[in-house]
Amino acid sequence: MAGSTLGNKFVVTTWGESHGKALGVVVDGCPAGLELTEEDIQIYLDRRKPGFSQFSTPRQEADKVEILSGVFEGKTTGTPISMVVYNTSQRSHDYGDIATYYRPGHADYTFDEKYGFRDYRGGGRSSGRETTGRVAAGAIAAKILRQLGISFTTYVASIGDVDIDRAQFDADYIMKNELYMPDKASYERASEFLSDVMADNDSIGSSVECIVSGVPAGIGEPVFHKLDACLAKAVMSIGAVKAIEIGDGINVSRNKGSYDNDNFFMRDGLVSKKTNHAGGILGGISDGADIVLKAHFKATPSIALKQHTVNQSGEDITISVRGRHDPIIGPRAAVVVESMMAITILDLMFDNMSSTMAGIENFYKK
Amino acid sequence: MAGSTLGNKFVVTTWGESHGKALGVVVDGCPAGLELTEEDIQIYLDRRKPGFSQFSTPRQEADKVEILSGVFEGKTTGTPISMVVYNTSQRSHDYGDIATYYRPGHADYTFDEKYGFRDYRGGGRSSGRETTGRVAAGAIAAKILRQLGISFTTYVASIGDVDIDRAQFDADYIMKNELYMPDKASYERASEFLSDVMADNDSIGSSVECIVSGVPAGIGEPVFHKLDACLAKAVMSIGAVKAIEIGDGINVSRNKGSYDNDNFFMRDGLVSKKTNHAGGILGGISDGADIVLKAHFKATPSIALKQHTVNQSGEDITISVRGRHDPIIGPRAAVVVESMMAITILDLMFDNMSSTMAGIENFYKK
Amino acid sequence: MAGSTLGNKFVVTTWGESHGKALGVVVDGCPAGLELTEEDIQIYLDRRKPGFSQFSTPRQEADKVEILSGVFEGKTTGTPISMVVYNTSQRSHDYGDIATYYRPGHADYTFDEKYGFRDYRGGGRSSGRETTGRVAAGAIAAKILRQLGISFTTYVASIGDVDIDRAQFDADYIMKNELYMPDKASYERASEFLSDVMADNDSIGSSVECIVSGVPAGIGEPVFHKLDACLAKAVMSIGAVKAIEIGDGINVSRNKGSYDNDNFFMRDGLVSKKTNHAGGILGGISDGADIVLKAHFKATPSIALKQHTVNQSGEDITISVRGRHDPIIGPRAAVVVESMMAITILDLMFDNMSSTMAGIENFYKK
Amino acid sequence: MAGSTLGNKFVVTTWGESHGKALGVVVDGCPAGLELTEEDIQIYLDRRKPGFSQFSTPRQEADKVEILSGVFEGKTTGTPISMVVYNTSQRSHDYGDIATYYRPGHADYTFDEKYGFRDYRGGGRSSGRETTGRVAAGAIAAKILRQLGISFTTYVASIGDVDIDRAQFDADYIMKNELYMPDKASYERASEFLSDVMADNDSIGSSVECIVSGVPAGIGEPVFHKLDACLAKAVMSIGAVKAIEIGDGINVSRNKGSYDNDNFFMRDGLVSKKTNHAGGILGGISDGADIVLKAHFKATPSIALKQHTVNQSGEDITISVRGRHDPIIGPRAAVVVESMMAITILDLMFDNMSSTMAGIENFYKK
Repeated sequence: MAGSTLGNKFVVTTWGESHGKALGVVVDGCPAGLELTEEDIQIYLDRRKPGFSQFSTPRQEADKVEILSGVFEGKTTGTPISMVVYNTSQRSHDYGDIATYYRPGHADYTFDEKYGFRDYRGGGRSSGRETTGRVAAGAIAAKILRQLGISFTTYVASIGDVDIDRAQFDADYIMKNELYMPDKASYERASEFLSDVMADNDSIGSSVECIVSGVPAGIGEPVFHKLDACLAKAVMSIGAVKAIEIGDGINVSRNKGSYDNDNFFMRDGLVSKKTNHAGGILGGISDGADIVLKAHFKATPSIALKQHTVNQSGEDITISVRGRHDPIIGPRAAVVVESMMAITILDLMFDNMSSTMAGIENFYKK
Repeated sequence: MAGSTLGNKFVVTTWGESHGKALGVVVDGCPAGLELTEEDIQIYLDRRKPGFSQFSTPRQEADKVEILSGVFEGKTTGTPISMVVYNTSQRSHDYGDIATYYRPGHADYTFDEKYGFRDYRGGGRSSGRETTGRVAAGAIAAKILRQLGISFTTYVASIGDVDIDRAQFDADYIMKNELYMPDKASYERASEFLSDVMADNDSIGSSVECIVSGVPAGIGEPVFHKLDACLAKAVMSIGAVKAIEIGDGINVSRNKGSYDNDNFFMRDGLVSKKTNHAGGILGGISDGADIVLKAHFKATPSIALKQHTVNQSGEDITISVRGRHDPIIGPRAAVVVESMMAITILDLMFDNMSSTMAGIENFYKK
Repeated sequence: MAGSTLGNKFVVTTWGESHGKALGVVVDGCPAGLELTEEDIQIYLDRRKPGFSQFSTPRQEADKVEILSGVFEGKTTGTPISMVVYNTSQRSHDYGDIATYYRPGHADYTFDEKYGFRDYRGGGRSSGRETTGRVAAGAIAAKILRQLGISFTTYVASIGDVDIDRAQFDADYIMKNELYMPDKASYERASEFLSDVMADNDSIGSSVECIVSGVPAGIGEPVFHKLDACLAKAVMSIGAVKAIEIGDGINVSRNKGSYDNDNFFMRDGLVSKKTNHAGGILGGISDGADIVLKAHFKATPSIALKQHTVNQSGEDITISVRGRHDPIIGPRAAVVVESMMAITILDLMFDNMSSTMAGIENFYKK
Repeated sequence: MAGSTLGNKFVVTTWGESHGKALGVVVDGCPAGLELTEEDIQIYLDRRKPGFSQFSTPRQEADKVEILSGVFEGKTTGTPISMVVYNTSQRSHDYGDIATYYRPGHADYTFDEKYGFRDYRGGGRSSGRETTGRVAAGAIAAKILRQLGISFTTYVASIGDVDIDRAQFDADYIMKNELYMPDKASYERASEFLSDVMADNDSIGSSVECIVSGVPAGIGEPVFHKLDACLAKAVMSIGAVKAIEIGDGINVSRNKGSYDNDNFFMRDGLVSKKTNHAGGILGGISDGADIVLKAHFKATPSIALKQHTVNQSGEDITISVRGRHDPIIGPRAAVVVESMMAITILDLMFDNMSSTMAGIENFYKK
């Protein structure tokens, strides 16, 4: 499959380059009858908008979304929803010099190897701006999921060695700070640390956690299209993500079965668990508990510090990447993680609808 | 998509239950003209065969593979290769008691929620035996990759808190010990530790690393079907995997850009890197360096220790899982990780063949 | 996509060659809870079984199907159903001479051009025996559809210039004659004609019609995956089919809108039509009327008459195709047409389940 | 799969409604390095542009295409090409009255049954304007094919009972008449006939033939994704097509094998055929001869004549469809047929690139 389409029933196709005319997305398979406005999308896009934090690129992009199709009289029609965001601040001249060499940590070299050349302006398609379309699609998926009683809590869990204080977790605080961290003390320590990193002309890694509540048990297809496998792909496909953990994540490889197995109990007449080491997924299928995923983002590869690299003439050179860059990826990427999870969970919920004869007969029999 | 088919051009469809008549796989899209024998497949299957180690289930299965189609006069014909392994040691009576309750850490509950009932014998389709077909397919993919100069080094990197000693790394030793570890001292420490775990009727987690050498630069599709995203899905789809790391993995979230960026250098006229924090993948596309992936397996959920759970009548009960179980998953799963990676890389290499006009014209013009 | 997998949710993967060890199919995405036995499959397979009619090849194949997975205690489990039919009458020596030349009307030349060589025994994968797996899968799809109130009437509509007499249409007669025609007089005329064709060492074309009753309105996805488009692909993929007509078919290009438009009327409180020129499909979506499709099969290309062709050494030669061949394809292929239609309609019915928010909320809300 | 994406490697996603803001298409998987301008696309779009013939709707739409992504410095980059055409002449008030009833021969009823409601303005997504995106994508596919030596001849073969005179076939004349017929006398007879039909407030059916020259032997995947099967789906997915013929088409069901089999001969050292009853496809794979397909279009369903139908209140009513309509579909649809065939053939040519080990090794080995 070519690279820019994802999903089986809720199908997302994104397009656009960092410094092209526009970026956009086509969402096909959105069910008919969903009330949808551009404002529903804009709320999500604003969470990744550049230029509005001391910790993000000063590039100012309004990122105003326009819906071009698929909505009629305020409701989705079941046909493709095309959404576009026009680029308004393409200072291509910032990037002219990167046409001839390969920035370390970037996709310049690999795009050249794959395609023979590349749109070098701001990274072209490999830019973080590529996620605009993902978030627009994710806003729709998340709205549908909310109507089904499913909600998301997404936040930055660490910045460098500054970890959040889980004892002070305050979900309401997440949207109140530009680092999207869930406690004030951690935000303040991280801010200070980030300022130092920026002063050093360096950048820093971070991690993002996403917790999904209300997913019914039974979602995910056994074997290759397990819920966790599909989530891992969706989130790992975000640029700069280098590790994915579900539930206890890497710690499971150090733990014993007697610890790791979440025992079942009856609670209010329902099968329940007291622990959730599994992160809400057993055998690739949701078990009704919270879905818990953590994504690890590397530091922004664009740094003004001197680096060694090579140019297209095959010469060793020393460079310093100028331009307008975020010093950290996680905060603006949190909504991208949430979007990719929403898209994936919704798609698997659609896939799940034909799992049993009883469900099918109930759907089709009058 | 239903759950048991993976791939776009090299398409793998597996089937079979732990205690059914047989397990198997259909590989479609295998190129014509590959020399292929049942022995090529058997070598891979033997690496996951049960019953031949003190650290694996005593269930004895020869796991002899039979090729039913797609090979003619010793060569693949380009048509589907159907392979089957008959089950010979289905002691279903071992499992009769698990029909009525949900084993913690297993997929019993989630299968019931999804499908209304389940083949409870040995876990049915959610059993580790499901991976038989994956490995048979992986053996073919790996053989093709070898002919293209691509090789795999796969080993157990940790068992509980016993980590391998990278200073003593000996690739030749991997296939010489039943734990598939790459150094003797670690194997011996792990063996002792595992014996203690087994004596306690408990199980333990582990991690597996897979290094792929020789993948040309340019493999992987941008945006959703990145090489790392597809690998993450493929490997996370193996039962019991709860985390995936590429290159430096979770450590990237603590590191700075100045450390994490692999600088480029010219070496023998080729673009090269001295470090490989990226694990051979930049922007979702291979950069020519080794592909490095680590998978974290949870402990075998079947343990003889007492556990709390519920039965299908909604009663809280206490159980102890009897039967023939491995105390650890990693060693027998190493070849499954390698297989999933081989399948994924090969499929993306096929996808990559139409990336440029020059490549297409060269292929089709006489 | 490699060629042997079809479907999105009800996914069918076939494998096997005419003279290999076996042929088979894996059906993934079959809903759990369907009562299914090998007898359900066998009834369908017997309709295409060779060797039991004066008008079919004398090759005797019992074509006994065995279910290897996916059924537990008489019900489907939701996991892949693997079915196999072993070849028992592979007289490969019949075919040795065709290894070196290209039979006119067959795929010998095109397989060689595509793959470099071919399994020449009985046509290998391009043999009509390839349809065995399609019919086994179709039997399952048709059983599910029957439980949803959907039924099939499939018959041979013409053999050469012998057309059925629609005034004498008798659905019960179809299964009572070896040509699967719906009226006795036409059967008798066709039999006589066929005997003459066979006496001439020639073969003859035929057409098959399939009428599907009870498909609810709303099935089919707009634009590329229209119901008629998917049916056309599914049925055209049967070897020897060269034309597909829906409803009035080719006649629509000669008719006026005032004739072709099926007017709507209310009948018993339901929207209904008095005519069905559209064959039950409007805008690619079922309209509740009978789905009507006609497939045109060319004559069996294997004929004992002298033909000109070339051999692999690039020499012009004259051949006469010996062996055991049907003189006509339609009668044994009727059940293949029905199977492909059942598979396609069921798959699109599954796809349709997420078309509206109301349907989704009704499915998931407790 | 949701309905608006087609293709495996050359992936086309269309969107847009007749009277929405715009229509468009995203083409993903277009190889890098193709010289591409908006003019390349416009030439194709102009062939289906409304308002410029006495035999097409007077609705004036410039249908000016804009490329928003995927092209850099005049060449495709390998990333998605997003193209948009803004609607400029949406006279929605023309269509207000059709909101409440079901036009015979249209998709009004089936969309309502599927989605619960519909964008009724001009047919919304079921309008012929939906094909705008197909043609824009087809222009790209056709340009690539031309560079590989593959060319198209597409024309209207019949209008009502006016058939072209094959003895007078003049390929150059096709683009010189507004009915896209290949001989002057037939054009004149058809024009006269069409004028009469229009005077009667009626519409008429037509057929379109497409001949593709230069497709190498070996294209198409056996079994389900045969070249003819994929072409049938692609072309049948165009609104109003009710029958597809390959080569001799429906006549094969009346012919004998001795007639239908195209004998092979050596010509200039190449395997060749003197006849082409098969339409260039054997066993679902191209044989190197011209690919020949014929599509039958029904009459435009919108007619001003009185028709019976029902409204959404379940009442029988009589209507007359006003507005701006073509009296015939074939002429403007010819370029749509060509586009769908180009997209399909190119996609299967990409799929074919991994068919043999020799081809793969040649591609990847340095």
